[in-house]
Amino acid sequence: MATIHDVAALAGVSTSSVSNVLNGRTEKLSAETFSRVEEAIRSLAFRPNRVARQLKTGHTPILGLLVPSTANPMYGQLALNIEAAAQTRFDYRLLLGNTHRDKQQEARMFDDLLSFGVRAVIVVSSLDDERHLEEAVARGLAVVSYDRGAGSDAHSRVDHVSPDNYQAGYLAADHLIAHGHRRLAFLVPGGKTVSRGEKIAGFRDRISRDGGRYSGHVVQGQVSQAFGDSELADLGFAMASQVAEMRPMPTGVVTVNDMLAIGLMSGLNGLGLRVPEDVSIVGMDGLPIAAFVNPGLTSVAMPLADMASAMVERAIERSTQPDLPPADFLFQPALIARQSVAAPARAKKPRSQRTAP
Amino acid sequence: MATIHDVAALAGVSTSSVSNVLNGRTEKLSAETFSRVEEAIRSLAFRPNRVARQLKTGHTPILGLLVPSTANPMYGQLALNIEAAAQTRFDYRLLLGNTHRDKQQEARMFDDLLSFGVRAVIVVSSLDDERHLEEAVARGLAVVSYDRGAGSDAHSRVDHVSPDNYQAGYLAADHLIAHGHRRLAFLVPGGKTVSRGEKIAGFRDRISRDGGRYSGHVVQGQVSQAFGDSELADLGFAMASQVAEMRPMPTGVVTVNDMLAIGLMSGLNGLGLRVPEDVSIVGMDGLPIAAFVNPGLTSVAMPLADMASAMVERAIERSTQPDLPPADFLFQPALIARQSVAAPARAKKPRSQRTAP
Repeated sequence: MATIHDVAALAGVSTSSVSNVLNGRTEKLSAETFSRVEEAIRSLAFRPNRVARQLKTGHTPILGLLVPSTANPMYGQLALNIEAAAQTRFDYRLLLGNTHRDKQQEARMFDDLLSFGVRAVIVVSSLDDERHLEEAVARGLAVVSYDRGAGSDAHSRVDHVSPDNYQAGYLAADHLIAHGHRRLAFLVPGGKTVSRGEKIAGFRDRISRDGGRYSGHVVQGQVSQAFGDSELADLGFAMASQVAEMRPMPTGVVTVNDMLAIGLMSGLNGLGLRVPEDVSIVGMDGLPIAAFVNPGLTSVAMPLADMASAMVERAIERSTQPDLPPADFLFQPALIARQSVAAPARAKKPRSQRTAP
Repeated sequence: MATIHDVAALAGVSTSSVSNVLNGRTEKLSAETFSRVEEAIRSLAFRPNRVARQLKTGHTPILGLLVPSTANPMYGQLALNIEAAAQTRFDYRLLLGNTHRDKQQEARMFDDLLSFGVRAVIVVSSLDDERHLEEAVARGLAVVSYDRGAGSDAHSRVDHVSPDNYQAGYLAADHLIAHGHRRLAFLVPGGKTVSRGEKIAGFRDRISRDGGRYSGHVVQGQVSQAFGDSELADLGFAMASQVAEMRPMPTGVVTVNDMLAIGLMSGLNGLGLRVPEDVSIVGMDGLPIAAFVNPGLTSVAMPLADMASAMVERAIERSTQPDLPPADFLFQPALIARQSVAAPARAKKPRSQRTAP
């Protein structure tokens, strides 16, 4: 393998000039020297020794990423976007942990990252309690928390990058109401997370407008249905009977994520209920797969690539400048209309509402 | 944080006994000492310092994983399974790289892994050419290659863990033939990989049995359709017109993976062709999502958890015993029948085959 000496010899400069290029200290170099060194690095396919770099700078060029489960395509996609940003923009590699939203798992991962010399981590957790993140910060990790949104306390040293979940909930309800739905429901797995709470708040606020003409129930997956983030479609499938048994049955359903919606559609189908004729459905995430299910799933899409890029940038930036004031970055979602939403049947064919005497 | 001295004190043993437990040198310890140390480690939530361990053993307890793209749920699922096995069985963490089947990317990742002190990597590549893997082995990496199957040359120092892809192709064709299909097709993206070749071989061998009564064309995604592993459903969608334009049109289609099948189903639908009434479809992978699309997708399932476990074990084993003879581990697939396969329409209502005079 080529060494720093080979690069210096080929470029006709000193090894310290090469080192300056490698470490981004380019202010002292002429543009011509810089480009000669870059050219030599390329032609020799030179890769600086990471362990040596680590010993010198105290930093391992590795970014930690903790997600609930990469079996949920949402997080597989997020991992892809984050790795691409870390790799192409900062030459960082990605250390991945699936935590199943378990606080102990997250804390253990922080321990390991610190002992590997890793100084930056992105956490997708959305757990209500963020104290273990603050502890990690106190021990020297730069922590960016995804999907937890603003409203964290003022003493926090954790940065937050999130879609506007309130807006997502609002948009979903608004889309169904615009199609004539009055009886709505919002489906979530059991368990409380910050982002779920915000989505529900947006949903409810839209429902309560226009003088109380709409209803919107929140339906939680039953505790006996112990599905994790890897089995959200299974949970949605199981929750179809909860929806079918509601009296009156909702005609428009919002689910907190796309996988839940995909399972729900399949479950309703199995119960003889048609989507969208009997029940309209709006998912959230904007997964690519949502376009290919039958009917195509209307979904509130989150700007994943932009958020991934912002998270990587902030995590690495903070790892070298720990005194940056903590910040919240909010990204706007957008609804993608497909075939899973239509006007409710009763709006097409009005019937007199009769009850038995 | 607790230190090794705290553990030794609580267990009432020497620090070297604790170290023996941590490093798996338990043959000299009594069962009672062993369990006292384990108990102390647990109650103190003790985590050995990884950097110290690395300096001592020359090994970083990190496993590399290279996949084409975690946006394909197949690889998101695989990453989940591999990380779980690495973490719970060996206390290893996972360094993830998305390579998009690019050899340069794979080679760069090997460089980085080596410079981080990582000594074991699992590679999902399936590229025809495996020379860069052999080079990585020569430089000290233990490499396990997924889905490339047996048949590698005798001088290889790379281990292979694969589903029996030939059998998968055979099973898929056999299932369609058993339902009365005679005109079959096999859909693959452009680009040659070992596993695709084997699946096609199995498919063709089943087609050619029974005296040539069946036909089986291989349909490749057109080169102009530049979809990668992240956009397999898009590719399947686009390939629907290739299938619809075949004369005679196949009544039974096998796709090389599930995401391609899901996109194809959606594309055929858009062209007014019904699944399974007009075209029956068999996917491959056995993704959980295949159960929830409409109609449910029949698929040849690969035993992912077992293969993940075997790969992790072998990679870590080889990283400490580089002289192990290379081995091929083959796992049997199984077809999961759902609703995307039915008898072809013409088999239900036989018609005389008339041509214009």
